[in-house]
Amino acid sequence: MEIWRVNTCTKRFVREPVPDAWKHLGGRGLSARILLDEVPPTCDPLGPYNKLIFAPGLLVGHRLSSCDRISIGGKSPLTGGIKESNAGGTTGFALAQLGIKALILEGRPDPGDDWWVLHVSRSGVRFDSAGSVVGLGVYGAASRLLAFYGRKVAIALIGPGGEMLLRVAGIQNLDQNRVPSRIAARGGLGAVLGSKRIKAVVIDPEGGSKPPIVDLPAFRKAQKAFTQALLSHPQTHTYADYGTAAMVDMCQYFGSLPTRGFSAGQFEGAEEISGKHLRELILERDGEGRTTHGCMGGCAIRCSNVFADAGGKTLVSPLEYETIGLMGSNLGISDLDSIAKLNREVNDLGLDTIDIGAALGVAAQAGLMGWGNARRALELIWEIRRGTPLGRILGNGAATTGKVLGVERIPVVKGQAMSAYDPRAIKGTGVTFATSPMGADHTAGLTIRARIDHLDPKGQVEVSRGVQISMAGYDTLGACIFAGFGFAAAPEGTVAALLNAKYGWSVESDILEVLGRETLRLEREFNHLAGFTPADDRLPEWMTREPLPPTGAVFDVLEEELDSLFDTV
Amino acid sequence: MEIWRVNTCTKRFVREPVPDAWKHLGGRGLSARILLDEVPPTCDPLGPYNKLIFAPGLLVGHRLSSCDRISIGGKSPLTGGIKESNAGGTTGFALAQLGIKALILEGRPDPGDDWWVLHVSRSGVRFDSAGSVVGLGVYGAASRLLAFYGRKVAIALIGPGGEMLLRVAGIQNLDQNRVPSRIAARGGLGAVLGSKRIKAVVIDPEGGSKPPIVDLPAFRKAQKAFTQALLSHPQTHTYADYGTAAMVDMCQYFGSLPTRGFSAGQFEGAEEISGKHLRELILERDGEGRTTHGCMGGCAIRCSNVFADAGGKTLVSPLEYETIGLMGSNLGISDLDSIAKLNREVNDLGLDTIDIGAALGVAAQAGLMGWGNARRALELIWEIRRGTPLGRILGNGAATTGKVLGVERIPVVKGQAMSAYDPRAIKGTGVTFATSPMGADHTAGLTIRARIDHLDPKGQVEVSRGVQISMAGYDTLGACIFAGFGFAAAPEGTVAALLNAKYGWSVESDILEVLGRETLRLEREFNHLAGFTPADDRLPEWMTREPLPPTGAVFDVLEEELDSLFDTV
Repeated sequence: MEIWRVNTCTKRFVREPVPDAWKHLGGRGLSARILLDEVPPTCDPLGPYNKLIFAPGLLVGHRLSSCDRISIGGKSPLTGGIKESNAGGTTGFALAQLGIKALILEGRPDPGDDWWVLHVSRSGVRFDSAGSVVGLGVYGAASRLLAFYGRKVAIALIGPGGEMLLRVAGIQNLDQNRVPSRIAARGGLGAVLGSKRIKAVVIDPEGGSKPPIVDLPAFRKAQKAFTQALLSHPQTHTYADYGTAAMVDMCQYFGSLPTRGFSAGQFEGAEEISGKHLRELILERDGEGRTTHGCMGGCAIRCSNVFADAGGKTLVSPLEYETIGLMGSNLGISDLDSIAKLNREVNDLGLDTIDIGAALGVAAQAGLMGWGNARRALELIWEIRRGTPLGRILGNGAATTGKVLGVERIPVVKGQAMSAYDPRAIKGTGVTFATSPMGADHTAGLTIRARIDHLDPKGQVEVSRGVQISMAGYDTLGACIFAGFGFAAAPEGTVAALLNAKYGWSVESDILEVLGRETLRLEREFNHLAGFTPADDRLPEWMTREPLPPTGAVFDVLEEELDSLFDTV
Repeated sequence: MEIWRVNTCTKRFVREPVPDAWKHLGGRGLSARILLDEVPPTCDPLGPYNKLIFAPGLLVGHRLSSCDRISIGGKSPLTGGIKESNAGGTTGFALAQLGIKALILEGRPDPGDDWWVLHVSRSGVRFDSAGSVVGLGVYGAASRLLAFYGRKVAIALIGPGGEMLLRVAGIQNLDQNRVPSRIAARGGLGAVLGSKRIKAVVIDPEGGSKPPIVDLPAFRKAQKAFTQALLSHPQTHTYADYGTAAMVDMCQYFGSLPTRGFSAGQFEGAEEISGKHLRELILERDGEGRTTHGCMGGCAIRCSNVFADAGGKTLVSPLEYETIGLMGSNLGISDLDSIAKLNREVNDLGLDTIDIGAALGVAAQAGLMGWGNARRALELIWEIRRGTPLGRILGNGAATTGKVLGVERIPVVKGQAMSAYDPRAIKGTGVTFATSPMGADHTAGLTIRARIDHLDPKGQVEVSRGVQISMAGYDTLGACIFAGFGFAAAPEGTVAALLNAKYGWSVESDILEVLGRETLRLEREFNHLAGFTPADDRLPEWMTREPLPPTGAVFDVLEEELDSLFDTV
């Protein structure tokens, strides 16, 4: 494996051996290590000193179910802290096939420079003109790039949002059907790519091969144990049937479904946006709709879906819980077709549906749209595409929208919008939102499945700490959040067995925790140097004051407890 | 003296004796002490836990030249840190006449509450309806309030900007001619007053009296020494003749005059916006114009002015250097009439001309106006008045404008716009901008008069530390920045003599430093608890990279030196 380094100002490219201190890391952990080693934590995230890192996880490249994810990292223009955002699809696998442990984009051309497509292949890295795709949405741009570069390439690309340097712009990746649908959405890394004037990274794996495995029989054995555990886990079937939208019922039950700008935790239209109704709609409509779909090859869960309209034509793929929560119940919209249309528009702009959904909820509080008015929501998204002042406000996410429009009730931490779990009713997830180095994000440590009283402030810090460590570990492996069900149910030591077999290491069965803790410590260190303090590890003040119907809960985990979370990481 | 406390939610009012720990402080120092004692540093600045404090300085109430200033303090919605913004005019004197050492506004009504006028008199505090003045600019609102309450009252009020909760809204105060012209402009305290639904604080000093003086002969003697020193100081005459606009020449000379969005330090139109030309224009135009004018009674300097148009009608009073720098050269505008019109508009909205001027410079970089296009600048300010999305962007100041519009070159520190000294060419002032607990502000410690090489990074920290301490001391006394010329030239111990005579104290001749150091330490402590770190004590990265013509200077004071500044405060 090698480190590939590209200077986007000088257009120079070098390959380097992997430094010893980086070898045991991958994905999120490696990205954190590189950022701490090479990027000044106080730098301007859109300036020349920031770097953008594409790092496949440690287990990427073998079609291990749900374990081919790509981690993208950099200093976040949204939070001002460290950021890793990972995605499924084909990018991670393709980079691994070329033997790339990390692709590091450095420097920055003058803001007036041309736009480029970065072509990555066995022959190295080349800057192609992006003239034919600049300005296009991700769907149109991906089509043109595939037509030009052939359908075997992987592509990570930005939409107009990233070109406009909007702070909630993500980086879209192709799924195995070559649809740009797997977005590394959070924290504005698409704006970082845009600041470097790169519209797309095209990875041609031609001539590459799967990464070497030191002890193949041992690897196969561990893989089998993992896959069996995953397949026999009940959650796998829930996700195959209903996708992540299964979470609507669960959040409705706990009173944590964001409703009308996080003003209630239950939504009268929950049934209409539930996983069950989504499945029924897909099944009753002929055509392109699919209730289950794998974003990457070899996935046993296939939580993704294709949502088609009444005429059977694809509206969006996938339609996920976070989008349903933030652009559905959070906006008072109970109609999946409308949500799917909003989703597609935001995808095409290459923006984070969570932060844009939250921003629209804030805009609604400011009187710019009525609750439930999907048509107006769509118009507001068009403002973003047109680059109007209002569009730029919304396109920079919920924190900026609230600040500019003078709205107090903004659901963000460290400037990043909360995903679709009202933290007053799921307090462990509130602890994660508050303390994660990433800002508010469920993938940093969702606690909703823990068998605890989610309304009791006590003990939540321990629960959050545990899942934050695990998730940081999985993100370092390149494993999907749902692969965790399999690893947890597989025989003890399965993760260690896979790593030892692949790399010839001799790590212990606590390796997931070891990697997770190291990753979190690196991220905290970066944020500390960037100027973060305990004052940043807080939910918005109004959530500590305003009771959430119907539970009447406020967020009341003690600040001292929040501040103790990382003492034992 | 008493503490008057008003709860803006319950509308209750109490008078309290002054706690011992507060007695030796006034103005900025007292405000810092109260905030640290009573306001949670991490609170939402526009939420119910923030307080707004009106505190006259220690020497206020005696018509001591330039020493009747009012300090207004609170947690800043612009910087997120502690904020004190002081102003001349009549507010401080009126409060002192009522024996009020600090007026503390607490709590916050529901955002939908009515607007109120707070009437402060010997009988206490009363909430009057603000129905007849809400929505009005400060000029119109002040006129109506004076007509209603009589022309002897002092008024501190907000314009539409404060009502809209814009983060660069200030609090306007009446000068001795009862014109709202002395704005506590910086850091958004007008939005704090607005969040408490107070349009104006009307202070009726009727029946009040000057604060007691323990040893009147000693006070008179020290006063005489001070006044003589001030009158014989050459700077006093410069300011009387040219006002603060005299600074245009000085900054042009040093190459530190902000020009076209801080892209150059000299402006080809400098002569046309100079103090000399300003004076000539005022003199050649008949009518209401005045080259010199005192904002408060008893001032020996009278640096203020009245700028009239060609027909002799007042355009604005005063026209000051900071506005000329930020709304003139910074926008490429070399015409004083245009600058005066912009100034009046921004005043009427009750906004900070520094931050709005800087925001327009950022907007120009984003292509929203051409350099030198005063008509377009005026249109953009009208957008603020109309409350359009673009208006709300600009009205929240330069930092928000740059962030939303995707502009890199934003001249701010801690979110607050720099005043009109490019810090690359006056590096000591750059140190002040970087390290002051207030964010970028010249009144926190201007170094341009120090006889040093302003381009040499060495030694600037010492110079800045010295003036930051002095300024914090003067702000605690209630003394104008220009009173400092007098105190510095007066016999040693004059400040101590005044305080000892007034209060019966026995402070030493280093009292100015003692008060200044204590004030700065309190402010740093508040900011530390609010989450500020050395990462916040930095100029924008681009100013460390981009050379400033014609000197070619970048800001290169070492970060370790910046971080050592407060070690010896």
